Amino acid sequence: MIDIIGTIAAVLTTLSFVPQAVLVIRTRRTEGISLAMYAMFTAGVAAWLIYGISLGAMPIIIANVVTLALASIILTIKIRSVLPAQPSAQGATAATSAPIAS
Amino acid sequence: MIDIIGTIAAVLTTLSFVPQAVLVIRTRRTEGISLAMYAMFTAGVAAWLIYGISLGAMPIIIANVVTLALASIILTIKIRSVLPAQPSAQGATAATSAPIAS
Repeated sequence: MIDIIGTIAAVLTTLSFVPQAVLVIRTRRTEGISLAMYAMFTAGVAAWLIYGISLGAMPIIIANVVTLALASIILTIKIRSVLPAQPSAQGATAATSAPIAS
Repeated sequence: MIDIIGTIAAVLTTLSFVPQAVLVIRTRRTEGISLAMYAMFTAGVAAWLIYGISLGAMPIIIANVVTLALASIILTIKIRSVLPAQPSAQGATAATSAPIAS
């Protein structure tokens, strides 16, 4: 029973990043996404992956490989969006009302 | 050493939601945030919390209480933003270029 709850938890928190990644890939809208969050989160998931590999724990490894891939996609698009051609975007907390190409 | 990596991982993935929650609270910009992600993620973190309580594992409990609080704040603001007075927001994947009050 405990293992079932753990599995449900792992599947939900891992797969939850699929719709976020799809949304960001489709719309390229990243103003509402925190760069600091995804930088910390991606580093944290990488640490979880090392932790899982150290323990030889396949569920931790699988869940974190998937999450690392999805979080990396979101982080990459976010970093690209704050780098060029957006003079008013100074970072993750910049909230401008500049028009966005949809 | 493994425990240190696990602790670093837990701290990073938990605290990463702080800047995202602050960003959403400050700006109320949630177009780039996936409703499906936060619904699944919040449910998943609640399941992790039940899992941690079942095991009596304090690190899992503490990390997931904090994450649950932060994810719930983001989810609540996202749900509010898609409910009223936004006729073009049909759900998490709606990407309109309507002007947003900053």
